[in-house]
Amino acid sequence: MNTLRIRAGDRVCPVVIGAGSLGEVGRILCEQLGRRPVVVVADAGAARHHGRTLRASLRAAAVETRAWVDVPPGERSKSLAWVRALYERLLAARADRWTPVVALGGGMVGDLAGYAASTFLRGLPVVHVPTTVVAQVDSSVGGKTAVDFAGAKNLVGTFHQPMLVIADPVTLDTLSPRDLRAGLAEAVKMGVILRPDLFEAMERDAERLLARDARALEGVVTACVEAKGEVVGRDEREEDVRALLNYGHTVGHALEAASRGRLRHGEAVAIGMHAAAWLGESLGVTLPEVRKRQNTLLERLGLKLSAPGADKREAARKLKLDKKVRDSRPRFVLTLQIGGGSVWPRIPESLLRDALARITR
Amino acid sequence: MNTLRIRAGDRVCPVVIGAGSLGEVGRILCEQLGRRPVVVVADAGAARHHGRTLRASLRAAAVETRAWVDVPPGERSKSLAWVRALYERLLAARADRWTPVVALGGGMVGDLAGYAASTFLRGLPVVHVPTTVVAQVDSSVGGKTAVDFAGAKNLVGTFHQPMLVIADPVTLDTLSPRDLRAGLAEAVKMGVILRPDLFEAMERDAERLLARDARALEGVVTACVEAKGEVVGRDEREEDVRALLNYGHTVGHALEAASRGRLRHGEAVAIGMHAAAWLGESLGVTLPEVRKRQNTLLERLGLKLSAPGADKREAARKLKLDKKVRDSRPRFVLTLQIGGGSVWPRIPESLLRDALARITR
Repeated sequence: MNTLRIRAGDRVCPVVIGAGSLGEVGRILCEQLGRRPVVVVADAGAARHHGRTLRASLRAAAVETRAWVDVPPGERSKSLAWVRALYERLLAARADRWTPVVALGGGMVGDLAGYAASTFLRGLPVVHVPTTVVAQVDSSVGGKTAVDFAGAKNLVGTFHQPMLVIADPVTLDTLSPRDLRAGLAEAVKMGVILRPDLFEAMERDAERLLARDARALEGVVTACVEAKGEVVGRDEREEDVRALLNYGHTVGHALEAASRGRLRHGEAVAIGMHAAAWLGESLGVTLPEVRKRQNTLLERLGLKLSAPGADKREAARKLKLDKKVRDSRPRFVLTLQIGGGSVWPRIPESLLRDALARITR
Repeated sequence: MNTLRIRAGDRVCPVVIGAGSLGEVGRILCEQLGRRPVVVVADAGAARHHGRTLRASLRAAAVETRAWVDVPPGERSKSLAWVRALYERLLAARADRWTPVVALGGGMVGDLAGYAASTFLRGLPVVHVPTTVVAQVDSSVGGKTAVDFAGAKNLVGTFHQPMLVIADPVTLDTLSPRDLRAGLAEAVKMGVILRPDLFEAMERDAERLLARDARALEGVVTACVEAKGEVVGRDEREEDVRALLNYGHTVGHALEAASRGRLRHGEAVAIGMHAAAWLGESLGVTLPEVRKRQNTLLERLGLKLSAPGADKREAARKLKLDKKVRDSRPRFVLTLQIGGGSVWPRIPESLLRDALARITR
């Protein structure tokens, strides 16, 4: 087991990565935060597979579970209605400022539980136990929390660093092949914008990753957490370099929202990366080989590069609501080379329309 | 006009204090943040008195008002329902991360608008234009935001530092005598726990303050903002010394909630200070003279020291929900001498019951 220490603002968050760490959550929690009663918020799907192990590990460490809340899987649970429901449960559990909220599951439950915890009593400690690739390589680290509002993804949220993250790659065994592939898109993104070594490792290990080789997955998770930790350490609140992590996300979020649940987040990001690379190439920023290498790796991982039949107008409309908009002009992250992302302030609107047309046909 | 710079976390917030500053909001805003469109969230009562001046000042500085939202006065508006309503208005106004939310009014609107702004797109800039004593001497500075939930005051909230505060003591002319007095309780609190010089100035100027002498009020506001700024600079998130600012608030919040709107916040705090001084004296922590001086000043300012007929059981129940509870035991701030507050971890339950009985008879 590997422990990375991610610095953000004036806090340091230990991230424990390793096969079998799920069974050690109780012990690690006591070690890192002291023995305190906890409230668990679990994705009901993740709970079905991993709830028993987590419960046993808490019990074995004599950690009292004050409440256990199962949240239905899927983006629809990332709502203010669920936030209210969690407040009710935290109240009923008599949670105080020192009661950790343990989030078991993927990005949805991490964002939702993180948001509720960050605003209840102005902030409870959060422990993430991510069980999806997206959550392990990306969303559990860095402190972004969010829920959706009025059809806009992550419109409401906070920055609230977790106290502890425990990522067990063995939990990825229970993912559907589709979720596994979607998650790997985020890891490819990290490689493309920040880490050529990660990108090359993924080119080398694509098949092992798809076969859920624990060592290969652990390597990817570790590299991603390291890379993300560096970025977040320099810019917690996305005033600067953290915006790089949105590579593929400007178009990706719009497509994801427009698809109304048909596209997974990672699937939308892969298509968004394709759009960004195409935009970059059209602007003479991205070398054609870079786009090709990126897209080849995405396709080897079983990811699609377009969403035929997606609602183009709706996606265009959603683009205007993106948080990365400044003065209503979407900013884009483009990549110069593998491992070399950069924020591009203005993209001509006609080019953006062409890109949307290309990825929706 | 006086500009203090309040440091919290890695931010510095200018606080402009001075007679006539309301008419300069537009100019100061452009100077400090640049010219950007704004969204105004106003207490409807404050808007009736000061809306015209604020609008004119924004117009004079060519600042576009994208939306102006009037919120009904009173604690009942500090609700998640109003937060949702503000999200809708911010969406409709196409607010982006650089759109300041200007809060005009007292603590209610500052807390509510601050909370909505802190969570919309993970945080819009906030400009406070406080028009009550409580807001000028206390709540507009320090970055606490909140709404009430399930009958518990400030149960949901964030820490989100404003970008700018503009406090015009002339706006206090329109307060009812009752609101003026209630607000001064918070200033007395600052004196009792932190600033003997402020306390003495208030003893000297009590009558001038009640007569709304602008220079006397400006002096009190300035001293309070300075004192609060020092505390918040050392401890933004209330892990330590910031807890001192809760002097009188443990019992005060409980009474305020139990009174269901009959007690003003400041009135409840004055009674809470009486309870805290009595507890301190009973424990041999607070000298009897300190309690007497404190209570004499509160009474000279027209504040009551007890709430006969308050629902004692309800107040006792609310005490258990206080955010300052750790392991379900309320912590108290007691004062050793004027200007010398200190956090007291445990108060015997029987003594607490006696204190509640004393202030409700």
